[in-house]
Formats: sequence, C-alpha cells, structure tokens
Amino acid sequence: MESWSFPPAYDENFLPAPEGRYWFPRRETMPAGDREKAILERLQQVCAYAYEHAPLYRHKWDEAGFHPGQLKSLEDFEEKVPVLTKKDLREAQERHPPFGDYLCVDENDVFHIHGTSGTTGRPTAFAISGADWRAIANAHARVMWGMGLRPGDTICVAAVFSLYMGSWGALAGAERLGAKSFPFGAGVSGMSARCVQWLNMLKPTAFYGTPTYALHLAQVAEDEGINPRDMQLKIMFFSGEPGASIPAIRERIEGLYGARVYDSGSMAEMSPWMNVASSAETDGMLCWQDVVYTEVCDPETMRRVPYGERGTPVYTHLERASQPMIRLASGDLTRWVDEPNPCGRTYPRLPHGIFGRIDDMFTIRGENVYPSEIDAALNELAHYGGEHRIVISREAAMDELLLRVEADAETFANTDGAARFCTEVEHQLQKMLGLRTAVEIVEPGSIPRTDFKARRVIDDRAVFHQMQTQLDEENR
Amino acid sequence: MESWSFPPAYDENFLPAPEGRYWFPRRETMPAGDREKAILERLQQVCAYAYEHAPLYRHKWDEAGFHPGQLKSLEDFEEKVPVLTKKDLREAQERHPPFGDYLCVDENDVFHIHGTSGTTGRPTAFAISGADWRAIANAHARVMWGMGLRPGDTICVAAVFSLYMGSWGALAGAERLGAKSFPFGAGVSGMSARCVQWLNMLKPTAFYGTPTYALHLAQVAEDEGINPRDMQLKIMFFSGEPGASIPAIRERIEGLYGARVYDSGSMAEMSPWMNVASSAETDGMLCWQDVVYTEVCDPETMRRVPYGERGTPVYTHLERASQPMIRLASGDLTRWVDEPNPCGRTYPRLPHGIFGRIDDMFTIRGENVYPSEIDAALNELAHYGGEHRIVISREAAMDELLLRVEADAETFANTDGAARFCTEVEHQLQKMLGLRTAVEIVEPGSIPRTDFKARRVIDDRAVFHQMQTQLDEENR
Repeated sequence: MESWSFPPAYDENFLPAPEGRYWFPRRETMPAGDREKAILERLQQVCAYAYEHAPLYRHKWDEAGFHPGQLKSLEDFEEKVPVLTKKDLREAQERHPPFGDYLCVDENDVFHIHGTSGTTGRPTAFAISGADWRAIANAHARVMWGMGLRPGDTICVAAVFSLYMGSWGALAGAERLGAKSFPFGAGVSGMSARCVQWLNMLKPTAFYGTPTYALHLAQVAEDEGINPRDMQLKIMFFSGEPGASIPAIRERIEGLYGARVYDSGSMAEMSPWMNVASSAETDGMLCWQDVVYTEVCDPETMRRVPYGERGTPVYTHLERASQPMIRLASGDLTRWVDEPNPCGRTYPRLPHGIFGRIDDMFTIRGENVYPSEIDAALNELAHYGGEHRIVISREAAMDELLLRVEADAETFANTDGAARFCTEVEHQLQKMLGLRTAVEIVEPGSIPRTDFKARRVIDDRAVFHQMQTQLDEENR
Repeated sequence: MESWSFPPAYDENFLPAPEGRYWFPRRETMPAGDREKAILERLQQVCAYAYEHAPLYRHKWDEAGFHPGQLKSLEDFEEKVPVLTKKDLREAQERHPPFGDYLCVDENDVFHIHGTSGTTGRPTAFAISGADWRAIANAHARVMWGMGLRPGDTICVAAVFSLYMGSWGALAGAERLGAKSFPFGAGVSGMSARCVQWLNMLKPTAFYGTPTYALHLAQVAEDEGINPRDMQLKIMFFSGEPGASIPAIRERIEGLYGARVYDSGSMAEMSPWMNVASSAETDGMLCWQDVVYTEVCDPETMRRVPYGERGTPVYTHLERASQPMIRLASGDLTRWVDEPNPCGRTYPRLPHGIFGRIDDMFTIRGENVYPSEIDAALNELAHYGGEHRIVISREAAMDELLLRVEADAETFANTDGAARFCTEVEHQLQKMLGLRTAVEIVEPGSIPRTDFKARRVIDDRAVFHQMQTQLDEENR
C-alpha cells in the first residue's frame, strides 16, 4: 500500500505514471469502510500525540472528560472530542506567545511562519515544521494531480504571497508535482496589467487564484485588447471564495478563458487546505478523508449530519505534526453526499462546494436562506445587471423578503423587458427558496459594488428598521 | 575540499557547526591565487557547456572569434569573451519565446519562472531549473551564514514575492540555513502596519527587505506607538538599493532598530544575487568569487580595472546550468579593493558597495560625480532636511553645480543657522568632489519626495535650460 502513516513518510521522488488518474490509487479508491477503519487508527495516533505534546488539548480534553484511550470508533470521536474554535487558538497564543501551547515540535524545528490576517484583533500564527511543509506539498501535489495537472504544466500562482496560506500551498504542490511554477503573486497596485502581459507571453497551462481575481484579470485583459482565451489556459483552480462551485460563476470564468475551472480549499489553519477539492472528472468538492478527516456537522450538536444534509465542516489533521488541528470548527456551510464519484474516488463529496457561513444564513418564515444561493441564482439569468441587495423586513407578523436586483442596461431601458425580468427573478426565487419574494428591478450600476465576501443582506426586522427608514427618507 | 564543481553537487543536509565562522572554510579563505586557478577551470567548464547548449553564446562568440578552447587565463576571459547585455537577453527571448536560445536545460526541467518587471518594453523571463534553485539556496545560505545568521533565527522576508528574485532568494537561503522563515512579503496596501504588528508580536531575529522599506516601517511603527527597537531585530540585510552601504543610511537604520545592517546583491539575472555581500565582520561587499565571478571593468574596454579603482561589475555564473550568465554587464558602478578582510575571507571587496549606475554619473569640469555620493555626504550632516536636487548648468564656458538642499526646520527658521548649514554643505562637497559648488538652502518639505532610485539630478546645460528658466520664472 502507498505510504500512509502518522507522521507521514513520503518518498519525495515518487511520481505516478503520467497517464495514471490517481497519485495513490489504493488510498483514493479503497472502500469507504476500510478507509474509515484506517482513519480511526490515524485519529488514535494523532490524539495520543496531541494529548502528550499540547497542553491546550490536554486541558481541554481533561475538562471534557475525554482521553485518547477512549477512542474506539468514529462515533466516539464526534461524541467525545470537543470542537476547537479559532478563538481557542487565539487565546492560546495570547497566553503562550507566539505559537500557543499547541506547538507540538521544538520551536527550532519551525520551518515557515504564516498566519491569519488579523483584520479584527490579534492574528493567529501558523508554525509549520519542515516535515509538515513536505506533507502539505505532497498532499497538494496529489490533489492537483487529480485535477489533471502534470509535470510539464506551467502553473501561474496569482494570489498574494504573504501570511495567507493559499498561494504557498498551491506553489508547494506545483513544485512537488514537477510542474513549472510561476509565482506571480497578486495584490500590488499595477500588477494586474503586468500579470496579463506575462500570461499572454508565457502561455502557462494552469492558473491559481480567487474567482474574483480571475474575473478582474479577464476585464483587465480586455481593456488591454487581449482576449483571455489567447492565454491558452487549460486548468484554473481556485480557493478562498465559494465562487468556483457556483455554476454561474464557474461557467462565466470557463467561458471567458476557455479553461476548465476547479474549486478547492477548506481553511488556512487546515493546510493542506486542498483537502476538499474538485477532481478532473468530479464537480463539487471531494473530501480527501485520508489527508484531513472532514465531518459535516450539525452546528448545534457538532455531530455528523447524515449524508445528503447540510451542516458545518469540522476538520481534523491526519498528517500534520507541528500544530495539528483536531476537530477545528470552520463555521462554513456545506452539504455532503456519499454517492459514486465519476472519477472513481470513494470520498464523500460536497456537491455545491462550500457555499456560505453559518452566520450568513438567515431564516425567513421557517426557511433557511443562504445569500450565496441567491447570488448564484441571479447569476444564471441572462439579463442580470451584476449586483443586488437582500432586504428582510416584517410586515404585520410576517417576515418579508425584498430583493433589489439590477437589470442590464437594455432590459432596464425597456418597460416590458424590465417587467419580464422581474417575473423571471420571482419565479427563480420561488423555485429555489420555496417562498414568495418581492422583487424590485433597479438600474445597472445603481447599487454600490461590494467585494465577493461582503454581505449583501440588510436585515430590516429589528435594529435596522429605523435606520433603514431614515435612509430611505433621506434618499427620497 | 568542500564541494565545488560545475554543475554544483551540494549535500543538502550539510550544516557547519554553529560556532564556525565559515560555511566552507577552504573555499572562503584559500589564497586568492589558488582560487583564481580554480575559477579558470570553472570558467572553462561553463563556457564549454554554454557553447554546446546555447545558440546565443555560440553565435555571439563565433562572431567575436572566441572559442572556449582558447581559454587559458583570466586575461583570455576578459580579453576574448564579449560582454552580454540585458538587451541581448531581451532580443533572444523575442526571437525564441519564452526563454530565449540560452536555456541550456530541457524546458520540462524548469522549476520556477521569474523575471524582470518590464516597466519599459518586453520583460525578460528567468527560467530556473530545480538544480539551479538548490544551488541558489545553498549559496544564499552560505552568504547569510557569513552575516551571522544561524538555525534558530527567525527571518522576516519583507519584500514583494512576485517576479522579483530578491525575496525568493533570501527565502530559499533562510530555508536552506535551517532558520524559521517568515515570508511576510510587501507592496500590498495596508501591509506595512500589519507587518509592524507581526514583527512586534513574533520578535524575529532578522529582517530582509530594501533600506527604503525599513525606514518606512520604522515610521509606521512610530505612528502606531511602537519603538522599532522593541521588535528586537538583531540582523537586517538588504538588497535592491545601494542604501545599506551608504554609511549615513546604514547608521540611521541601525540607530532606529538597534540592529546590525548588512548589504547584499548584484542583479536578479545573476541569482544567487547575494554573490556580493557584507559579512558579520566585514563592511562593504565581498565578491564571493567562487559562486559568481565578478570583474570590475572599465566601462569602455570592459577589461578589469586595477584594485583600488572604480568600474562597472561584469558577472559570470559559476554554479548555474539553466540560463548561465557569462560576462553579463551590470551597468552598475563600484570600486573594488584587494586587502585583508576582517572576517578572514580572501575575496576582493567593494568597500562602498554598489553606489550608482554608469548612466547616473555625470562629469563636471572633468570630474566624475556620482549622485549617490552627494546623497551620502548630505545624510552625514546633522541639520539636513531630507531631500535635495542637483542642478547642473553652464555659465559662460564653465559647468556649474548648484545644490538645492533642505535644512531641518529649526535650522531653516534661523538666518544664522541656515548660513552656517550652507557653509557646512559647501565644505563637505568641496572635500568630497574637489570642486566648488553653489549651495542654496531651502525649506524642509519644499522639494518633492522621490523614491530611492529616482534621479535627483537636473542637467540644465542643454535641453533643459529653457525649461528650467521658465519654471524658475513661474516659481518666482
């Protein structure tokens, strides 16, 4: 069997035959039940290791009455092991700077330091040992192989190289895969036009970045008189935003570049963050359970929901020894299924990727509504003007959903067209949400643009009610 | 003897004992004459290799009547081998995209692609094989070891990670050295305040970036109420600008951070670009001749000038096999000496680092003047306000040098103080340039700030004369 142990011991010179679909055929296609037995063994090892080396886990587990010796099944794991939160990590680093009392290796064995952006409050540092860096590189190479990337490909990594692990993980994977790495980065003023120039000059076969940046680059290319298709990209893989799993956005990017689009990525803390990712033959995201064990859980009980249902991913490292994350709560939202995958891998799958955050979800007349689903639905409409706002209010005792939607210029200019578009949006939402929605069509460009992750929801039911009224009056 | 061959074959697990001053004692301290014999052997190998694999060299050398078989001495090398220019590289890549007809390895062996910024015209791509990447990492680790960096250090790399090789080379060296790498990057809006926060939180021992950025960060730290000394940096090493070898700038940075400052770096094309660098005990920059062979040449004849004289560095790779540069003309200006070095290394040294560009130099009344020297001289004066302009004009038949210099606020506000500062500047320049200079003291902040590399020279002798008169009149 291929190398699978904790800690991992990969052969750095191993490469599959180029025509092989799998990097590790047995690990990727074994019966799910057999894999779960092996995962349990890994979990026992990782938990024993963490209990021994990380006071954070020891104290947390002692308090919860859990000891690694009690771990006899995956049910024991979800039942007995409390989830870890980002707040736990932040507080541990505050108490034990800089890396917290969950660094399980000697501080001198730390190879790379990365971290969260810390836009609010104290950032969290990731201390990654050299051995863990190799584990990340090997795992990413394996997942990227599954997307169809091969030695000989040129991979442009167009995301900022800094604290963020996205770019570094993609680069480490590209290097380990034997591809030509073109780490262009992103985020510096003036860089986009130059990136377009280089893509057009080098003709790399693959691109990594965020969906937003790929859409922006296509616009920059067009402004420079370059058709994005002339860059001849074949594979574009993304992380950092849910876009690549939203059919309309994926199709827009595929249409602009003439390339195949793949989604990937869990959390920076969880690197190898490509532990959930599309494969060449399988849409949505496969959970590479032998790299990181993913449980899609009920956000209240933090126990797995049945396949087919929605929940929040809880992740556990099976191949990291420096700061292993055990049951880290993501706060993300997804749905998982356990069905045969076209690529033949026997992993559970997130058919719509990761489509939101627990705290993005709102409930209206008892229905759970995810803003990203509304975004996706609108993006499927030919006459959508590009931006919208979701306003939730209460008329009498009933919650009301109002959707302000931009039409495109031609549609908006034509009274009949606008009315038809309005009906179309109403139907689309009725179909998707199962509830009636008031729709207001507005002029294209009239709603301020927001970055991808920003919230488009205005909840007008309580505290915002007065403010909204006042704003509306001022705008009259 | 330590590994020294072409192509190089380094032991990736080798590390000197921590107390050792040298990475490779013999290569670094051998009698210069013995080293030159070995360099000649390397040059014969590199030239034969390039002649065989790179049509660019074959054609260029055939045309010049040079064949590698003729190489019997270092004099043969400088006499017979024509210099290579950046233009040669650009044109070769235009003819043979993307990497030019001087890529000496299979295109599939390319590991990383970097390049010039291409701010004017077509950029040049650097195609670096995996083996060359390891050679760069080993060479940089060796030079950084010479600066006093050791496993256990935490090294913050605060320069943009993109096309530019500076950050990547420093990172590869830090990784190979066994230090903790903290690749923070730079260049993204809002990053500087965050960098200060992280430096203050992590307390890394070492910092790499540009002198300009270090000065900027100190300012940002002070704005955030943080004393840069609280970051507890011990070693700061720089490249990309001449600042770290200008005593006044070096002292300013050392004073702000309480750290030792080292200079390094030749050209991105020449990576390992740390082939000229300070060591812990030796100021200025040592020419690590066994890594890259440096000839400081007369810009007209492109033959070596005697030690003690000024000239332009011409570089030759001794350890790169993918796109070896052979006699690449830098266009930079320096002075080299051959004296015993405090660190005991037997390399030639650039005592004032690289202090300008051939085309920055101007001649006035027969004297060569380097703007960077004027900058350094002004920075040594206590009452300097921080910016200046050099105006060259012609009165009757004589060139005149006018220096517009900002005084600090206190000095400027006091008539006597301003007059004394004016005399001080005149004396300083007379001493340095050997010619009389007119000095005009102006208000602090009155001259627009320019980035470090921008030219501060206004040559008013010919075309600019009328323009300047007009501007002066408008400003009256």
